[in-house]
Amino acid sequence: MSARLLDGPTVASAIRESVLPDVRAFTASAGRPPGLGIVLVGDNPSSEIYVRNKVKAGGESGLWVDLQRLPATASLDDLLALVDRLNASPIHDGILVQSPLPDALGKHATQRVFDAIDPAKDVDGFHPVNVGRLVQGRAHLVPCTPSGVIEMLQHYNIRIGGTRAVVIGRSEIVGKPMAMLLLQRDATVTICHSKTPDLPAVAATADILVAAIGRAGFVTPAFVRPGATVIDVGINRVTDRAVAESLYEPGAPRLADFDKRGSIVVGDVHPKVSEVAGALTPVPGGVGPLTIAMLLKNTVTAANARLRSA
Amino acid sequence: MSARLLDGPTVASAIRESVLPDVRAFTASAGRPPGLGIVLVGDNPSSEIYVRNKVKAGGESGLWVDLQRLPATASLDDLLALVDRLNASPIHDGILVQSPLPDALGKHATQRVFDAIDPAKDVDGFHPVNVGRLVQGRAHLVPCTPSGVIEMLQHYNIRIGGTRAVVIGRSEIVGKPMAMLLLQRDATVTICHSKTPDLPAVAATADILVAAIGRAGFVTPAFVRPGATVIDVGINRVTDRAVAESLYEPGAPRLADFDKRGSIVVGDVHPKVSEVAGALTPVPGGVGPLTIAMLLKNTVTAANARLRSA
Repeated sequence: MSARLLDGPTVASAIRESVLPDVRAFTASAGRPPGLGIVLVGDNPSSEIYVRNKVKAGGESGLWVDLQRLPATASLDDLLALVDRLNASPIHDGILVQSPLPDALGKHATQRVFDAIDPAKDVDGFHPVNVGRLVQGRAHLVPCTPSGVIEMLQHYNIRIGGTRAVVIGRSEIVGKPMAMLLLQRDATVTICHSKTPDLPAVAATADILVAAIGRAGFVTPAFVRPGATVIDVGINRVTDRAVAESLYEPGAPRLADFDKRGSIVVGDVHPKVSEVAGALTPVPGGVGPLTIAMLLKNTVTAANARLRSA
Repeated sequence: MSARLLDGPTVASAIRESVLPDVRAFTASAGRPPGLGIVLVGDNPSSEIYVRNKVKAGGESGLWVDLQRLPATASLDDLLALVDRLNASPIHDGILVQSPLPDALGKHATQRVFDAIDPAKDVDGFHPVNVGRLVQGRAHLVPCTPSGVIEMLQHYNIRIGGTRAVVIGRSEIVGKPMAMLLLQRDATVTICHSKTPDLPAVAATADILVAAIGRAGFVTPAFVRPGATVIDVGINRVTDRAVAESLYEPGAPRLADFDKRGSIVVGDVHPKVSEVAGALTPVPGGVGPLTIAMLLKNTVTAANARLRSA
């Protein structure tokens, strides 16, 4: 038995296609394209890649993407002042501050910055008002990764209502909003975490299992009810060959990749799960591409809401 | 086997005792007692009783309780104007608008009014900012019933971390905040509802089972793992003797109560669950009294936060 692969790029393309007419209509009405301000502080190499992909995808979808950079030496006040300027700007409909922020900004910097973003422009959906509205079933802007997962399930006609869903991980960015989105669609939802006793048995009750813990290959076949849909949100870079060998059989192409590059990116789900699951998102090529597609969609949602309330 | 009864009045008294020194300290610092504004629109008989109990309990704890009444004919604008006045008032630290509002105010009146309350004075914890902060693990004002349940569990030294908890019901007032509070204390939490398949079996996985569905005696022994802690949040008035007979054996004192008064108040949990559960909150006398105690505590929390930020 081999799980059906749920293909992220296919779904991401469909979302991006669906956004195009809305971008055109907004641009015609407003006399300008939807505007997305991206703030990048410092020079974290992963952040550089993420931001570059966001800028590129936004441009391809007809958005105006304004990348604002601050040096790693910027103060929290500098950053908050920039957020205030973007909040006040009539042509920025969405604001995204790329995390992680430099440690030098202090422990609570991320929360303070996210709290400072105008909820109407909060395309990441991290502001407490948007979190609260999501819980209350009247979401405006929803975090991109879990809403991308919902789009993925819908694209492949995977039923949510009446199922058992288990979410492993309770982060603000994925686990909790994922649980709320599944609950609103009438799944019976269990949220698991590092303190869950007998986690494999709990996970194996799921019709839909979402892994969002950030541990390479943590979810083994023992966690998976045969035929379940498994959504792998993990993006883990493996640099230890022993870890890679624990995931792949000798001779597997991904081990050859490892030997060529010195690392590979893997999910939270062990490759052997494909022998048990009914459907599975691969890593890479699963949930990852949806996050950017949903960011574009959120930007257009924010832009249209601002146009209507103007 | 007979479940230990978790006694609401005992725990409520302990909470109210614990609030007294805080009230005294605030009153000494601020030169006035903590102030709670309660808004009652119309003359719903149940609301009259609830509000009377809140006014009385507040006074006994040394709060200043300001009951503001509006006639059933008041408009939504009248109500929002009153909320604005209380928001602006320096001597009202907490604001509570008693629900349900009269139907004549329209379908979205409750949400609009709750949204209009200053989050810093939102002692019911229903504003989206407070809901979001709760989800994010930095709660300021938490809905009173679920936070009362946590106090109850703590009072009786019932372990939460590492347990399986099942919440039946997904309301904004109880189910969802209850799930978040249990999750933050490291329970593995499942949220069930009317679309949950095989609900008894899911409920029976719980070490802590919270019933908040509003259906008299719905949770039967089949829902309960032997020895589990069962929290009954339901307050259901039974006026049909056949329903009362389905809950109590012939000759039971509560049936005599029914015959005397023509109705009884029962929980969501069937009385026979006391033969299976390890611990159980009775109805009446369980969770009910905690809600008002937590309202007093929230008012003092709001008052102190306002004093500090003044």
